[in-house]
Amino acid sequence: MTSITLLTDFGTADSYVAEVKGVLSSAAPDAALIDVTHSVPPGDVRAGAYLLGRVWHHFPPGTVHLAVVDPGVGTGRAALALAAHGHYFVGPDNGLFTFVLRDAEVLIVSLPTPADASATFHGRDLFAPAAAALAGGQRLAVLGEPFAAMPARLVYAEPHYEGKSVVGQVVYVDRFGTLITNLAPDLVPAYATVEVEGLEVGPLRRTFGDVPTGGLVAYIGSGGQVEIAVRDGSASRRLGMGVGGRVRARLG
Amino acid sequence: MTSITLLTDFGTADSYVAEVKGVLSSAAPDAALIDVTHSVPPGDVRAGAYLLGRVWHHFPPGTVHLAVVDPGVGTGRAALALAAHGHYFVGPDNGLFTFVLRDAEVLIVSLPTPADASATFHGRDLFAPAAAALAGGQRLAVLGEPFAAMPARLVYAEPHYEGKSVVGQVVYVDRFGTLITNLAPDLVPAYATVEVEGLEVGPLRRTFGDVPTGGLVAYIGSGGQVEIAVRDGSASRRLGMGVGGRVRARLG
Amino acid sequence: MTSITLLTDFGTADSYVAEVKGVLSSAAPDAALIDVTHSVPPGDVRAGAYLLGRVWHHFPPGTVHLAVVDPGVGTGRAALALAAHGHYFVGPDNGLFTFVLRDAEVLIVSLPTPADASATFHGRDLFAPAAAALAGGQRLAVLGEPFAAMPARLVYAEPHYEGKSVVGQVVYVDRFGTLITNLAPDLVPAYATVEVEGLEVGPLRRTFGDVPTGGLVAYIGSGGQVEIAVRDGSASRRLGMGVGGRVRARLG
Repeated sequence: MTSITLLTDFGTADSYVAEVKGVLSSAAPDAALIDVTHSVPPGDVRAGAYLLGRVWHHFPPGTVHLAVVDPGVGTGRAALALAAHGHYFVGPDNGLFTFVLRDAEVLIVSLPTPADASATFHGRDLFAPAAAALAGGQRLAVLGEPFAAMPARLVYAEPHYEGKSVVGQVVYVDRFGTLITNLAPDLVPAYATVEVEGLEVGPLRRTFGDVPTGGLVAYIGSGGQVEIAVRDGSASRRLGMGVGGRVRARLG
Repeated sequence: MTSITLLTDFGTADSYVAEVKGVLSSAAPDAALIDVTHSVPPGDVRAGAYLLGRVWHHFPPGTVHLAVVDPGVGTGRAALALAAHGHYFVGPDNGLFTFVLRDAEVLIVSLPTPADASATFHGRDLFAPAAAALAGGQRLAVLGEPFAAMPARLVYAEPHYEGKSVVGQVVYVDRFGTLITNLAPDLVPAYATVEVEGLEVGPLRRTFGDVPTGGLVAYIGSGGQVEIAVRDGSASRRLGMGVGGRVRARLG
Repeated sequence: MTSITLLTDFGTADSYVAEVKGVLSSAAPDAALIDVTHSVPPGDVRAGAYLLGRVWHHFPPGTVHLAVVDPGVGTGRAALALAAHGHYFVGPDNGLFTFVLRDAEVLIVSLPTPADASATFHGRDLFAPAAAALAGGQRLAVLGEPFAAMPARLVYAEPHYEGKSVVGQVVYVDRFGTLITNLAPDLVPAYATVEVEGLEVGPLRRTFGDVPTGGLVAYIGSGGQVEIAVRDGSASRRLGMGVGGRVRARLG
C-alpha cells in the first residue's frame, strides 16, 4: 500500500482537505492518506518547508508527499513533481522543497495546469491528480515536461562566529513553546554555555528531565539541532522569543 | 477498499470521534476512514450541510458519508440512511443533506434506534453501525423502514434583483477569511462591479494573485460561486463581515 | 488489517505526529493508523488516561494502542508494552493505562531504549517501533523483559456520602462544555436531585432534548457516568466549573 502524505495550510475546519482527499481516493483508491499537518500558518512557506524537511525521510521509499502552501496559486509560479531520495514530492515551486533538495539527485517535471482547473485551488485540481498518478505507479516523466530552471529555495541565515561565541537563530517554535535553532551539535561542544537575550541557559543537557520543573534547558532535540525549552512550560513565552530570535553558544 | 467519510461537530480533543472510529473499525475492518472535518461549530447544521455539499462528489461512487451534527439527538427527529448519486449518506434528519438531495433520485430509510443506544451519542450507537453495514455491502433497504416523509431541508435566501443590481449573501467564511457567496457566475457578468457594504471590490478577477498584496478581490471560487478575498489577508476581518452579509453586483 | 491508534499531547501543527506515523508506516506498512486525539493538554496524563479508557474497547481485539503523554521522557520512568483484554498498549509508565489495567489480566514488558533513540522523543524512537512490531504480529514477550514492578496508576477521589447526599466530582470537561462526573448511575436513583454549587439541576433526564434550550440538565452520558450539560450551551461556562468541581446528588 503506497502512502500519500498531505501537508497544507488549509486548516481542518473547511472542506478543502477533504476535497483533496476525495480526488486522491477516486484516482488512487488503494493509497493510504496520511496527514502531516494542515495547520501551517496561511502562506507560511518557511514553516511548511521546515516541517516537510523533518518528516519525509521517516516514511518508506516510494511515498508520495503532497505539499501545498501556495500563496501564489493561479499566478505564474511553476507546479512541480519531483523524485528525490526514492520519494516523490508534489507542490508549488516556491521553496517548499528547500530541505528535500539538499544533497539530492533530483528529477523534476513541471506539471501542466488542467484546462478545467480552478484558478485558486490547484491543491485539488492540479497537485492531487499528479500525486494520485504517482501513487498509482505512473512514471514521473509522463506527468510533465522536464523542469529546466532551478527550483526555488529559501535562504536561511547560517550560524556565524562573533568573537568566542557562535550565534544561531530560532527556526521554528513548536506547540510546547520549544525553540528549535539552526545550531548543529558540532558547533556547540560540551564546554559551551548557551545564552539567549543575555540570559544564561547553561551547557547542553540530555533532556528536559535534567532540570527542575520550570527550569530553562538546552539540549540536542529530536530533529538533530539545539533546542531550548522550559521543563513543563514554554520557553517561547518565558523568553518572549519566536522565529528569528538569536541564540548564542559561548565557547570560552 | 470502500471509504467512510466522517463529518461531525465533535471536535478532535475528546474521545467521541475515536469512539465512532472504533465502532466502524470493528464492524467494517476493511473500510478506509477519512475525516472531512470535526470542527463544524457545535450544532451548526447549516455549516455542516454546506461542507458536506462541497465534499461528497469528489469521492468515488459507493463511498459512505457519515454526517453527525445532531443537536436534536435523543428527541423525535428521524435517523436516516440514504442513497443518492451512487453514494450513501447516514445522519440525522435535520437538513444536513439539503445539498445532497438537490436534483437527486433518492432512496431513504429511517434507522431504528438500537435498544442499547445511549440517548446522547447516536453518532456512535446508531449512525456508525449503519454506516459500517453499508460499507460492508449491506443493502440500504434492510437497514430500516422506507422513510415516507420529506427529509428536512434548510431554507436559503436566494439572490434577488434590486434595480440594476443583483444582491446575494455570504454563505460561508473559510479559515483564510474568504467570503463565499451564493452568487452563481451566470448572475455576475464580466462588466459587473462587485460591492460589499458600499465598498467597490471591482469586476471579477481570475485569482487573488491578480491584485496586489492586501488588495480586495472578487473571483469565481473553487466551489463555483463568487468569493471575496484579501490577497494574503482576511476579507472577513477587513470588512467585518460574516455569514449572511450582503454582496451586490452592480450591472450598469 | 490491524489498526494502530494514536493518542498524544503532540498537537497536530508540528511534525511530531507525522514523524511517528512515518516510523509506523515504514515498519508496519499494512496497519491502519487511526488518531484518537493529539490535543491532550501538554503533559496532562490524567486527561490522556481518561480518553484512552473511553476509547480502546470500541476497537476490535488485536488493536495496538499507542499512547504518548510523556512529561518524564528521557528520565528513569519505564517504557511499557502490555497486553490486556485482547488489545495491546504501548506507552510510558506514568498512569496513562490506569483504566486499562482495571480488572485486567495483563502481560507487561519493559521496553529497552534503542541505542540511537533521541532523549526527548521516545514516541518516535522507542514506542512507535514497538507498536509497529506488535501490529506486524511480533510477540509481546520478545519486545522486552517482563515488567516485575506494579505499573503506575493514577489515584482518583471516589464519590462519598455526606448525610443524605452522595458527592462526586467532575473528571473531564468536553468541547461542548459538558461536565462529566465520576458518579455512576447506581449512586443516583431516579428520585435523587442533582446539585452543583448549591444550584439545583433536577433529577436525571434521558437527554438534553428533555429541557428547553439554555436549560441545565443532568443525565447518564454516553460514557456511563452522570453528566451535566446546558442544552445548546456550555455547562462549564455557565457554572464556572471544571475538572475537580463537586457535584452532589441529594437523596432525600
